[in-house]
Order: sequence, then structure tokens, then C-alpha cells
Amino acid sequence: MEPTIDLPDAVETATGWLTEQELANVRERVPMVYVDAVPVRVDHLGRVTKVGLLLRAMPDGTISRALVSGRVLWGETIREALWRHLTKDLGNDADPHLPSSPQPFTVVEYFPDPKRTGYHDPRQHKVALGFIVPIEGQPAASADSLDFGWVTPEEAVSEVVKSEMTAGHDRVVRMALGHAGVLP
Amino acid sequence: MEPTIDLPDAVETATGWLTEQELANVRERVPMVYVDAVPVRVDHLGRVTKVGLLLRAMPDGTISRALVSGRVLWGETIREALWRHLTKDLGNDADPHLPSSPQPFTVVEYFPDPKRTGYHDPRQHKVALGFIVPIEGQPAASADSLDFGWVTPEEAVSEVVKSEMTAGHDRVVRMALGHAGVLP
Amino acid sequence: MEPTIDLPDAVETATGWLTEQELANVRERVPMVYVDAVPVRVDHLGRVTKVGLLLRAMPDGTISRALVSGRVLWGETIREALWRHLTKDLGNDADPHLPSSPQPFTVVEYFPDPKRTGYHDPRQHKVALGFIVPIEGQPAASADSLDFGWVTPEEAVSEVVKSEMTAGHDRVVRMALGHAGVLP
Amino acid sequence: MEPTIDLPDAVETATGWLTEQELANVRERVPMVYVDAVPVRVDHLGRVTKVGLLLRAMPDGTISRALVSGRVLWGETIREALWRHLTKDLGNDADPHLPSSPQPFTVVEYFPDPKRTGYHDPRQHKVALGFIVPIEGQPAASADSLDFGWVTPEEAVSEVVKSEMTAGHDRVVRMALGHAGVLP
Repeated sequence: MEPTIDLPDAVETATGWLTEQELANVRERVPMVYVDAVPVRVDHLGRVTKVGLLLRAMPDGTISRALVSGRVLWGETIREALWRHLTKDLGNDADPHLPSSPQPFTVVEYFPDPKRTGYHDPRQHKVALGFIVPIEGQPAASADSLDFGWVTPEEAVSEVVKSEMTAGHDRVVRMALGHAGVLP
Repeated sequence: MEPTIDLPDAVETATGWLTEQELANVRERVPMVYVDAVPVRVDHLGRVTKVGLLLRAMPDGTISRALVSGRVLWGETIREALWRHLTKDLGNDADPHLPSSPQPFTVVEYFPDPKRTGYHDPRQHKVALGFIVPIEGQPAASADSLDFGWVTPEEAVSEVVKSEMTAGHDRVVRMALGHAGVLP
Repeated sequence: MEPTIDLPDAVETATGWLTEQELANVRERVPMVYVDAVPVRVDHLGRVTKVGLLLRAMPDGTISRALVSGRVLWGETIREALWRHLTKDLGNDADPHLPSSPQPFTVVEYFPDPKRTGYHDPRQHKVALGFIVPIEGQPAASADSLDFGWVTPEEAVSEVVKSEMTAGHDRVVRMALGHAGVLP
Repeated sequence: MEPTIDLPDAVETATGWLTEQELANVRERVPMVYVDAVPVRVDHLGRVTKVGLLLRAMPDGTISRALVSGRVLWGETIREALWRHLTKDLGNDADPHLPSSPQPFTVVEYFPDPKRTGYHDPRQHKVALGFIVPIEGQPAASADSLDFGWVTPEEAVSEVVKSEMTAGHDRVVRMALGHAGVLP
């Protein structure tokens, strides 16, 4: 079985929106809307100094670094979904500062076929809106992840960190750093 | 019955992706991914000189001006969806020049509840990626629309044209003109 | 004599970068680099709820509402210029949150000829990078301005407020609101 | 003597805007406004398939690959400057398609001190607006450059090509590819 990034959908479906079976059916029929958030630390001038990465146990036994990524539910706005996933993954004290514009820095298209775009999700076709989100509080790894840690932009694009990311998240991180003007 | 913008889904479902009943079921469960394309004429310096608007008969008998808007299908990239809808609505001689970046100028969130965001689709929750698309060929109204016409930026934001648009498309047009730097 | 927006350059030149005569000479030879900041209040989801406008006495005796706008000095980064002008105009307790990306929402080109682009500065050709800046502290009108006040997006685009702005700043405000997804 | 990217200013000054001495004086007093254009080939869906790079003899004898980059003159719009530099560097048959929006994908700040931002111009402080420009015609190296050639996105970010670029242009290319969604 292949690694997947965002198990928490299983939890979400338990809240009554969709049963797992229903979600599986829908996933075969239409693209899913996702948000991909790149948590960052910024200095008082807004410059990105650190990138935040989750560390997650994957179903296949691998442990990978990952962005904060999750599905937009029916009836939920993109801002609400960003808030919900950031709060769930980084805790209630993270104090994420959501962007004032709905314009994402990029749109990432994940497909079950890893060769389609290079962005891969074995379970579904998903369209993820990418946002850089400054975190001003104290993030903490949640129940779903083993760890959350900050790395420098240089470390974020290093071969070591790159090799620890799957699904194409390493490229999303580099695009985010490019957008922020700090791609090494 | 309320006006809807993009009947063509009925046609798409006929191609075998989803039956109408299946699509109706899915629409109640997850947000749909759409593209909202604003066709424009530009001069040799890239400045927007005209905005293209469709004229469509709506199910309730009204006739409204509208953007080129349509669903992204399972397995289809956003660029492919843009191309498919522009070609379908403006004909094979339109010669649309798709943007070199996947960054939309905005993301528009339509809900069945018209008060949620002001962007309204009675059938579904949809997340539409907005793109400005220069048209360099000869567009022609297709079978799905009564007319296609060019208006100046001034006309596009006038009360007359505004009153002929529904679903919040008038606001999408103004945001596109703002992004293009020609909002009067 | 026509109204001008940013007298404070006179102060800056006093700090030793350029004498007023030197600045006048340079202004006739090359375009000046400016930042146009639109101060906003946002809610916890990042949505713009208010727009901040300065009220300034102009050389011709008029009083106009204006953005925070100012020159980028030699050797100064854009972020440093944004910080300097926001702090000077809104005070030390304003707590501006500068954007994490250097990508402006627009670039505004002001010319001495008011018909060139519709953006007007009688003294110079200037190229202004537009940024939306959330203000999280307590802004206060500085010595250079009579007042600073918050208006809603609806008020910001109203005919009354529009008639109180010169130089094309009303259009910059509308473009900013469009970019933020809250253009009424 | 250090390498410089855009000698052509010497030519421009000959057209009567500024003498070389005047330009040198101004350069010590205010930041210069530049455009950095990344020429690209796109397919019918707008996807970037190739990046265009100039090959230029530098004053120090080195030969470097470079973007199309040049100064915005007094009284000239950004679009006019883009057109002028692209036409001058790539010839009259290049058929550049300028972007419909004035929003650059980034703003690059070059300083005489190479450590300030990593973007370096020994002669001046310049603020360059970055644009991706699809080239639909037949570009040809002009008198100012030795060669113009297309490379793939993979080649553009390779160590070989990177080592042939100076001033930080390699990072601008990577940011452009990130913005276009094709950063390898």
C-alpha cells in the first residue's frame, strides 16, 4: 500500500459529512478540493526565516515530512478549511495568520497516476490551493503527526529534507520559497 | 426554478463521466472544482481593451450575460478544462492563449445559499479558479449560447451590463479588470 | 499648484540622502520607485473587514483621503521602505504585518500628465508597488496627516469617499479590495 | 572590472534621455526601475516548455547567460519598456506576448553590495519587476548578444547552466519556473 499524506479525512468523515464508503465513491468521480498550507516564521519585515514541516507516520511504515494539507468540505469556505487544518495539525496555540487575499501562490494538481503531473495521491485526483501562512504562536505536533519542526529555507531545499518528502511536497515547498523571494 | 450558468454539464455527463443522477448526488457531498475564464482582447502591449461576455438563455426564461465557466472533470487538468470550455463556448477559431502560470487571479466560492459569499449557484458548492484569457482568433457563439460579444472595460462595469449578469459574475469581471490594471 | 500626496519626501531629504534640489533634478530624469500600502483590518480568517485611509492637508488647500505611499530610498529594500512609511504615517503602535511575498497585488504608474494612465503625480513619473498590509495594533495619525480612519469596503468604494481621493488612489483601493476578494 | 548585465543603457543614453555622466550621477542617488523578462515557449495549453537565455560578452571578458533585462525610462510605461527591451534583444520577429496583468511574478532587488540580497549589480541599486513572456515568433540574437537559445526547465535549473549565470539571474529563472508550475 502506498503512503498517503492526509489520513485525517477518516476522522472528518466520522463527523457526519460523508461515510468512508461514500467518500471513496465520490473520489472516483470528481476532483477533490484541497488546501496546501506552507507554515512559515517571518521577521518583522515579513521575510520568511523558517519553514514548518510535519513529520508523519505513513501507512506503509515510512515516516515523511509533509505540509499542512487537507480537504475542503461541502459548505466550508477555503479560509475555514485552512483554519481548521492548521489548528488541527499545529494545535490551538499556533496563531496562524491567514492571507488577506484568496489568490493562492500556486495550484497543485495531484493524480493517482504519479506520472501525470509529478504530484501524486494514490487515492484521488485533487486540486490543492497553495498558501503561505505565517505562524505567530507556538505550534505543537498533534495526535496525527509525530513531530512538527522548523527548518531554514536552505535546509528546506536540501537533498536530505527533499528525500524525506513524498507526493511532490518538496516541489510545493520550493515554489512557496520562490514566491516568498527566498528560494536559495 | 432558478437560473443556472452552465447547463453544458448535462452534455458532459452524456460523454460517460457521470450520469446526471450521479452528478446530483456528488454535488450534495463535496465542493465542485470549476474554472471561470474572462475572455479578453489585448493590444500588442498586453493591455486589455475588451472583455468578452456570453449571452445565455437561462432555465427560468431570463437571458443573462456570463463568463466562460465550467467544471473540471475527474482526470482532467485545469489547463485542459480551460481549453475545453473556451473551445466549446467560443468555437474552434477562438485561439485562446492560456496563461503561463497556474496562479489564478482569484478564487471564487459559489454556494447554494446566496448570502454565504454573494456568489451563487443554486445547484452546488463550487470553487472556481479565475483566469484572464486573451482571445486572439475569431470567437463565435456556440450552440449553448445566444450570443458572444465584446464590451469595453467601462461598459463591463456599467450598471446596464451589471444588471444583465447573475451569480456574482459582475464582481468576477470587476476583479479581473482590477487584476489587469484597467478597472475604471 | 496641484495637490500632492506625499510631502514627507521633504523631510526625508533633510536626513541627508538628497537635497531638495538634487531630488528635483533626479525626478526629471528617471522614474522614482514607490510603495503604495493599503492598510487593512482583517478577522481571524484573514478576511478584510476595514480599509484604513489617511486624511491629509494638501498644498492647494484641499483635504484628501490617501493611502500610505512613499519613496524607496537608495540602498533601502522595499520591505524597509514599507516599514518606514507605515511607521511614520501610522505611528509606532500600528503593528503592520508585512506580506511574506514580494509580489505586489499591482504596479501603479503615476505620471505628471494626468491623461497618461489616470494615475497622477504633478512632480514626477513614479512606479509604485501596491501591497495590502494588515494592521494589528493601534494606528494613530502622525504629524504629517490630520487623521487616520477605518472605513468598510462598501464605504471605501462609495462615491463620497471616492470624491475625497485624488491621484487615482480610489482606483488603487478598489484594485486592492478586488485582490482581497471583497470588492463590493 | 566586474561583469554587468545590460550594457545597452549606453545606447539608450545616446538617444538623448540622459548623458552617461548624468545617468551615473542619478544611479548614486535613487533606485533604478528595471524589467526582468523571462522569455518562454509555451504549448497550446500555456505550459512552459522552454526557457530562453541570452549569451553575452561581459566587460570582464566572461561570457554569461542572461535574462532580457533593462531600464524603464522616464515617461515610459512598464509595458513599453518590456516591449522595447524584448524587441531590441530578441529582434523584430520575436512576437512577444506581454502579460495581461501588471502584477509581476516577483520583484528583484539588486544592490552594488553582493551580500545585501544576493542579487548583484555593481553599478547601481535597481528594483526589477519580473515577468514571464511567451515568445511566439522567431527570436534572433541581436547586436548586443552573442547568442540566444532555448533550454528545457530541467536544463535551466541544472548546475551547468546555473554556473553560466551571474547577478542572481539563475534564481530569477527558478522563481519564474516555480511561478509557472514547472520548477523541476
